[in-house]
Amino acid sequence: MTEGKGTQSNQYFPPKRKKHLTVDDYVQGVLNGDRAVIAQTITLVESNLTTHMETAQKVLKQLMPYTGKSIRIGFTGVPGAGKSTLIESFGLMLCEQDYRVAVLAVDPTSSVSKGSILGDKTRMEQLSRHQHAYVRPSPSSGTLGGVTRKSRETLLVCEAAGYDVIIVETVGVGQSEITVRSMVDFFLVIMLTGAGDELQGIKKGVMELADAIYINKADGVNKQAALNAKVEYNRLLHFLQPATEGWETKAYTVSAVTGEGVPHIWEVIKQYKDVTSKTGVFGKRRKQQMIDWVHSMIENQLKTRFYGNLIMKQRISEMEKLIVSGQASPTFAVQHLFSIYDQNR
Amino acid sequence: MTEGKGTQSNQYFPPKRKKHLTVDDYVQGVLNGDRAVIAQTITLVESNLTTHMETAQKVLKQLMPYTGKSIRIGFTGVPGAGKSTLIESFGLMLCEQDYRVAVLAVDPTSSVSKGSILGDKTRMEQLSRHQHAYVRPSPSSGTLGGVTRKSRETLLVCEAAGYDVIIVETVGVGQSEITVRSMVDFFLVIMLTGAGDELQGIKKGVMELADAIYINKADGVNKQAALNAKVEYNRLLHFLQPATEGWETKAYTVSAVTGEGVPHIWEVIKQYKDVTSKTGVFGKRRKQQMIDWVHSMIENQLKTRFYGNLIMKQRISEMEKLIVSGQASPTFAVQHLFSIYDQNR
Repeated sequence: MTEGKGTQSNQYFPPKRKKHLTVDDYVQGVLNGDRAVIAQTITLVESNLTTHMETAQKVLKQLMPYTGKSIRIGFTGVPGAGKSTLIESFGLMLCEQDYRVAVLAVDPTSSVSKGSILGDKTRMEQLSRHQHAYVRPSPSSGTLGGVTRKSRETLLVCEAAGYDVIIVETVGVGQSEITVRSMVDFFLVIMLTGAGDELQGIKKGVMELADAIYINKADGVNKQAALNAKVEYNRLLHFLQPATEGWETKAYTVSAVTGEGVPHIWEVIKQYKDVTSKTGVFGKRRKQQMIDWVHSMIENQLKTRFYGNLIMKQRISEMEKLIVSGQASPTFAVQHLFSIYDQNR
Repeated sequence: MTEGKGTQSNQYFPPKRKKHLTVDDYVQGVLNGDRAVIAQTITLVESNLTTHMETAQKVLKQLMPYTGKSIRIGFTGVPGAGKSTLIESFGLMLCEQDYRVAVLAVDPTSSVSKGSILGDKTRMEQLSRHQHAYVRPSPSSGTLGGVTRKSRETLLVCEAAGYDVIIVETVGVGQSEITVRSMVDFFLVIMLTGAGDELQGIKKGVMELADAIYINKADGVNKQAALNAKVEYNRLLHFLQPATEGWETKAYTVSAVTGEGVPHIWEVIKQYKDVTSKTGVFGKRRKQQMIDWVHSMIENQLKTRFYGNLIMKQRISEMEKLIVSGQASPTFAVQHLFSIYDQNR
């Protein structure tokens, strides 16, 4: 986990408040840890304008060799679990130990006009004011695919800028946990205690994505309930396959408010990195995540071309009605749709 | 759950041992429950020859209006769980109550030359000899997509032929549980007891596909262990989301050998059909399964065209190396691949 790159021997001169940065301005600004330029680069990455997207790809191409040196941690949790408070507590602890910490968010509900479930950076006000931290709200986009691409590329920009720890926070909406799992090394799920049986709040399959489960708000009158929940979750985890080969997922208690258990999160993550690096799983997974990302972009593009075609939209809709009413066999329907597609590309 | 269609008022004359049946021969034979023709129709559906596939689609088109009246039940289980024995016991019970039962299999490992994990129909010899039963081995195919299509279409043929209960058995290989879940109404997972902690045999995510879990071999010295396992599984299920909206998944014990608990399976399934029909979930799910099947065939076809293109294969392979070594950004790589694809279709 290295220091920021602001200490290069070549003197770095920040671009004089230029509105239009060149590719080189972006690249040099990021590599030198210039916060203003980092922010502008991420804004560029998030833009939907074609010219911006072209520039962004040129910038990313030059930044790629400088990526990969951080640890990437995903955080998810049931609504009200205290995710943001816990991330802030964890992030501040790391900043005080001189790590540089970026906090990103993947929130498919995020929209420029309507805001997002995760709110904006004022949710981690103390952390965002720390000189070693950079907190960014989720990109807005019409589609999860768009948010994913932008988040992944933002993560790469932050790595190239020298951030040691990249945290990606997500809400439990749609496929966002699976998305974040596919871009991080370690995936942490935050749960709540309940009076008895409130442990059902978690979505199908999320438990099996977790490398660790933290039961938050383990303080005051709630502490015993949290310890009981920990026992239950560890029993549950015993029956499920772990998320990462060679790593045993366990449940722990934590309190973002008192700070108890927060340093332990970092100990677990360091141990995880150690164990999985030794077996090669750490590196192997990162490679596979890149390949999977390429394939998922390819498949999204193929589907957009097919389903986005105006003639196809109509034919598909008609065909679905015929199938559902039992008048057409599905295989025949697909053959027919492809012959129309081939004539109308 | 209706009787077979062999009692139509129009007299049915089986085709005189023809080698080449017409579309009409196939259709009439199936609708009249002619076992020889049913078998030939399924063989036709399973064929990879283009002419056979064209004929099969014509036959299916005419059979479609007669499908949908059965109950479709999926069975999966860990190796050695006694799946086939339990299905045979269950199937025989239903046949003795005058239901007509078809047993199909989805086994992606199945191949004509090498056989399959599920073996062939001699594994349910007693059931396959019952006049009310029809047991068919898994289709062979190079791909899960191929096996899926053939299995789904075979299921439709069996329904049109008047089988009241269609059982689809699968091994726990690759995506086969998800595949079978997507073609059935009710999904049953068979587990074993163990001495202590052998409950980990189940694959990630399969537990959450289940509408019921049956702990088999609950007999003799194993009975107490089975009852203990039932308690553990019920506790586990309490924390997981159910597979079907409005239905609580539970664990039970059963013994295929003594027969204890086997009639209960049918009681649970009838209750399931009742509950989910009242809420509309039963019909809604079937419609969605059809739509999903069409979409998954479309996506498979799109991917086959892209990845199967010889030039693309080479370029993708080169591009993956560049990405993994950090020399190309993934988004740029995908744009580049598509421009090559568009020039070389």
